[in-house]
Amino acid sequence: MNTDRQPVLGILGGGQLARMLTLAATPLGVKTLVLDNAADACAGQISPLIRADWEDHNALLAFAGQVDVVTFDFENVPVTAVRRLAKHVPVYPNPEVLAVVQDRLSEKKLFRECGIATTAFQVVNDRTGLDAALKAIGVPAILKTRRLGYDGKGQFRLKTLEDAEAAWSSLGDFALGHGLILEAFVPFDRELSVLAVVGRDGQCHTWALTGNWHIDGVLSLSLAPAPGNESLREQATTLVHHLAKRLDYVGVLTLELFVKDGQLIGNEMAPRVHNSGHWSIEGSRTSQFENHVRAVLGMPLGDTGMRGHAAMFNWIGSLPDEKAVLATVDAHWHDYGKQPRQGRKVGHTTVCAPDLATLRMRVGTLAQALGRQDQASPLTKHQGYGPAN
Amino acid sequence: MNTDRQPVLGILGGGQLARMLTLAATPLGVKTLVLDNAADACAGQISPLIRADWEDHNALLAFAGQVDVVTFDFENVPVTAVRRLAKHVPVYPNPEVLAVVQDRLSEKKLFRECGIATTAFQVVNDRTGLDAALKAIGVPAILKTRRLGYDGKGQFRLKTLEDAEAAWSSLGDFALGHGLILEAFVPFDRELSVLAVVGRDGQCHTWALTGNWHIDGVLSLSLAPAPGNESLREQATTLVHHLAKRLDYVGVLTLELFVKDGQLIGNEMAPRVHNSGHWSIEGSRTSQFENHVRAVLGMPLGDTGMRGHAAMFNWIGSLPDEKAVLATVDAHWHDYGKQPRQGRKVGHTTVCAPDLATLRMRVGTLAQALGRQDQASPLTKHQGYGPAN
Repeated sequence: MNTDRQPVLGILGGGQLARMLTLAATPLGVKTLVLDNAADACAGQISPLIRADWEDHNALLAFAGQVDVVTFDFENVPVTAVRRLAKHVPVYPNPEVLAVVQDRLSEKKLFRECGIATTAFQVVNDRTGLDAALKAIGVPAILKTRRLGYDGKGQFRLKTLEDAEAAWSSLGDFALGHGLILEAFVPFDRELSVLAVVGRDGQCHTWALTGNWHIDGVLSLSLAPAPGNESLREQATTLVHHLAKRLDYVGVLTLELFVKDGQLIGNEMAPRVHNSGHWSIEGSRTSQFENHVRAVLGMPLGDTGMRGHAAMFNWIGSLPDEKAVLATVDAHWHDYGKQPRQGRKVGHTTVCAPDLATLRMRVGTLAQALGRQDQASPLTKHQGYGPAN
Repeated sequence: MNTDRQPVLGILGGGQLARMLTLAATPLGVKTLVLDNAADACAGQISPLIRADWEDHNALLAFAGQVDVVTFDFENVPVTAVRRLAKHVPVYPNPEVLAVVQDRLSEKKLFRECGIATTAFQVVNDRTGLDAALKAIGVPAILKTRRLGYDGKGQFRLKTLEDAEAAWSSLGDFALGHGLILEAFVPFDRELSVLAVVGRDGQCHTWALTGNWHIDGVLSLSLAPAPGNESLREQATTLVHHLAKRLDYVGVLTLELFVKDGQLIGNEMAPRVHNSGHWSIEGSRTSQFENHVRAVLGMPLGDTGMRGHAAMFNWIGSLPDEKAVLATVDAHWHDYGKQPRQGRKVGHTTVCAPDLATLRMRVGTLAQALGRQDQASPLTKHQGYGPAN
């Protein structure tokens, strides 16, 4: 047990989320200890790090002995390992939340129990099951692994019934181990996320509704508050509160939503700080990282109000020229200290402004300087707020 | 030489300034390496740290070999050691700046060369010299060590000529080693500071003029922008620009000023980020820490505009109850991770608000919850902007 004045927050996973959690924890007087299976995990640049596999029971025990509370930067930690940890040290959010989000089927059932609409879906256990599911749901549809998919990985989109064979070739091998699920494809109008933070005492705050755009399944741009969606905020807030309450949740909880004909449809949830909330570091009065640390350590939560308008750009694969970003008023550079690699999230930039018109202008100029007009186009091309894709 | 993608910033001194520099450097993709003579220096909680004495030539050489640029969290590093370092690695600000600020006499001469008014002063080398200086300057006056004084240490205030003997008993021993200087005591109306940041290319920005209040010689409260001093901003900015230019300065430079009958008088300067600029973390669009890192690494500087109004409270000796701070809207908690000790700076809190009236209200409520009404009184007691002490 840690006997120091400063509490130690254990973080399972040492990527950029753990790194930004450490940056937020430090001014709060909270130390961090990261556990990751990679010795060069980027959070290790500013936090002590234990290199160990999730299945290394002794390493997990040693980790538990050095921390006051455990949380995640990554939800695909084996639930059995986390349940074992929870016998020795408080774990927030509780391990049963992981069990739910690690299985798309449990997640969708939970959504429906909480009054969150979902797309039509069918479990697929074998090749015949796929045909039956396609018959029930129709096309377009998406075949997904039930477990361990993220950022568009482990998915196959079927445009016609003839795509069934190709889909099975791509993902059929996962039917036994990970399980498969076929979901109706929703030609949604927009994609939103709502982030909530729940304290140990049940106190709950949400940040502004965020509008998200993806490229190749990976988040590319977030805008907060999502322009033109004010009318949906109350409903989205209610849904994420229901989820949090049902899960006995503590910490930051993210609910990703589609908007179709003005209706909210649950896409998926993340039991942690989330890429679509990175703008909150500069864009709100208390960031998702700081409030997650406060929540899991039982501190009072901070105000989640906006400082203005914010746009967050993800840098995927490699970083653009930092100089153009650094020279832009109220633009903030976040280099995760990772080596460049195709498809890898290596950094992000948040641009802030007091109003949407100024934000559009700043982002337009910056995007041109970076040659990233496409990435910025959802903000710069539509004076109102156009279709999502 | 560091061959990694990420530059490494070497910091001499590992206190809270180095800690906050590290927090600012990390999102910029800049690693830090701290050198301090205390193994438990608080920056070491988030940065690699070399424990060594300033005079340990081999340790300094090893340090130089691992970093790309060197800067300070502390200006009383021996100049000879820094000059040796500068032969191996760029040092910003340049070591000659240290030589100036380590001697109150050089500093005052520099101020006058730059058109910055100073109080009357006389060098004191012996007991007879003190009498001569008192005759020339009169009372009240302050006897100070020329070297290594800070936060009110190494000072003796003489109210009458009869205090000469007590002053000599207190500080006479320093006449030979540190040197002494007698300064006229200015019954100033207010105390201000102006912080500038200068890039390697000479680009220079200043933050809003800051109003400061001290208790027992240690900074207690800062307000930015210093209410009621708008008319002095341009003049203060000009003075600090002159200083920076004269010193061929790179990085953040702080100039402390007295205001007497509407005139600015130079008190002292600090060749580093400064306690009176801590509010800039949340109160301005780019903090002093981030801009110092950008400057010394040759990156473009960030905009120093305000996000609103800010009040910074220093926590001296021990931390107050964090809960009241955490529960205040737009109040930010900074625990330096140090052990409590009388007179030690262990943390600070910045309260932000869109306007001065809201700031006054937030601070008033918080100060009452903390039982710190005295500390907050310069803001809460005066609707205008009262006398400084």
